[in-house]
Amino acid sequence: MREGLKIFKIGGGIIDDEAQLQHFLAELAKVAGRKLLVHGGGKGASQMLASLGIAPKMVEGRRITDAATLDIVTMFYAGKTNKQVVSLLQAAGVNALGLSGADGNAIRAVKRPVKDIDYGFVGDLPEGSVNTELLHQLLQAGITPVFCAITHDGSGQLLNTNADTIASTLARALAAQYEIELHFCFEKDGVLSDINDEQSVIPQIVPSQYQQLKAKGVIAAGMVPKLDNAFAALEAGVERVVIENALKINEPVKTVLCRS
Amino acid sequence: MREGLKIFKIGGGIIDDEAQLQHFLAELAKVAGRKLLVHGGGKGASQMLASLGIAPKMVEGRRITDAATLDIVTMFYAGKTNKQVVSLLQAAGVNALGLSGADGNAIRAVKRPVKDIDYGFVGDLPEGSVNTELLHQLLQAGITPVFCAITHDGSGQLLNTNADTIASTLARALAAQYEIELHFCFEKDGVLSDINDEQSVIPQIVPSQYQQLKAKGVIAAGMVPKLDNAFAALEAGVERVVIENALKINEPVKTVLCRS
Repeated sequence: MREGLKIFKIGGGIIDDEAQLQHFLAELAKVAGRKLLVHGGGKGASQMLASLGIAPKMVEGRRITDAATLDIVTMFYAGKTNKQVVSLLQAAGVNALGLSGADGNAIRAVKRPVKDIDYGFVGDLPEGSVNTELLHQLLQAGITPVFCAITHDGSGQLLNTNADTIASTLARALAAQYEIELHFCFEKDGVLSDINDEQSVIPQIVPSQYQQLKAKGVIAAGMVPKLDNAFAALEAGVERVVIENALKINEPVKTVLCRS
Repeated sequence: MREGLKIFKIGGGIIDDEAQLQHFLAELAKVAGRKLLVHGGGKGASQMLASLGIAPKMVEGRRITDAATLDIVTMFYAGKTNKQVVSLLQAAGVNALGLSGADGNAIRAVKRPVKDIDYGFVGDLPEGSVNTELLHQLLQAGITPVFCAITHDGSGQLLNTNADTIASTLARALAAQYEIELHFCFEKDGVLSDINDEQSVIPQIVPSQYQQLKAKGVIAAGMVPKLDNAFAALEAGVERVVIENALKINEPVKTVLCRS
């Protein structure tokens, strides 16, 4: 039987609110068993770019990671945020260890190819990106890896990488060795059946129901890529995906996605 | 017989010069056997503090690490510099993994007590600061740990810590398990017998000679704390200390300090 592993992903909103971040980390410390955390960036990097007079580069509404932006996001994500999260988890009794994809070659990405848009220093994660052996060693040593959203290409280039993508790629890659529960934590209590009613959390969704909910337009536009990604992870061997409020991870209200 | 471990420390000067940094890392990649790197910070943090209009806080000529300064040095040391060094080493075939003292509780420091001066968020390293078990596991897994000069206090507070102190503290702590060679790399070829003659490198110094050289004033003032620290490390079980040029680590010119 595979051992359990819970992978949590938190976004930028909670990073920007120190009280909420501390609340989440205190709850995470109570979660039993092996675990791993992936965190997005907050607004700090954008604010610093603005303070330094570096205007965000946008092409067709998409943000471009140029060299100056990569420097700043690396400082924030891998430096300030990652070390703050690790030191707070250590204080809460969790043996956290911060990683970028470059560290121990944990996640090797590929710079996104230039097609219509040159996204700059952005990494995509093809099959085989994850150094599962390293992560297995760390997890078996009782360590909770804490990933920021920075990877590398193996040739000395750091790359900005989507944190949701990192979390689901880690989940898929580790599914052969661990029974994975992938938790996407955000500001709502789960997937809502009525976007205007915060209480309308759908407790469980299986693939056939998801197709119906999408067809009826019940699942709101912004949730579709997240849930498509989640169901793809289930198909790839992840045991279950949980969509929940970052402040309520130990409460029963949440949406659980499973294969059947 | 204890296995060998080479610990290298590089300072801020080389961090600020990308060509020199690449040269050093390429030479480090050629060094056989288990190794570990400690890097100081460069001028980047000071420049960014200036760009953001944060004046350096000085008390009696000593720099104070206030909260704003700690944030910026954490970003630079643990974020930008550490990840740049790790990704370049990975590209050179070295399985580097970046660490602050908070990661895996690798180095637990104590905030410097306030006596005459409040240095702010600065960490000192008492006996027992180093998590030798974690480092042993990483080294045995073929990993080259890369430390930045940021530690934590175990209660959620990050602390700015002198990189020379980190290097010698790691060397002493690991001396029970490894035969340690501690390399302090800087911009000169070694300890000079004539400060005005770059060619006057003293090839070897044992403690009795060191006392004589100090008494005669041959060892320049700035080198005294570094060498006192080095000889203390030898007394604490480190096998040898090497003072050398960061750009010539694989060349024979250097000063070797040993017990006899």
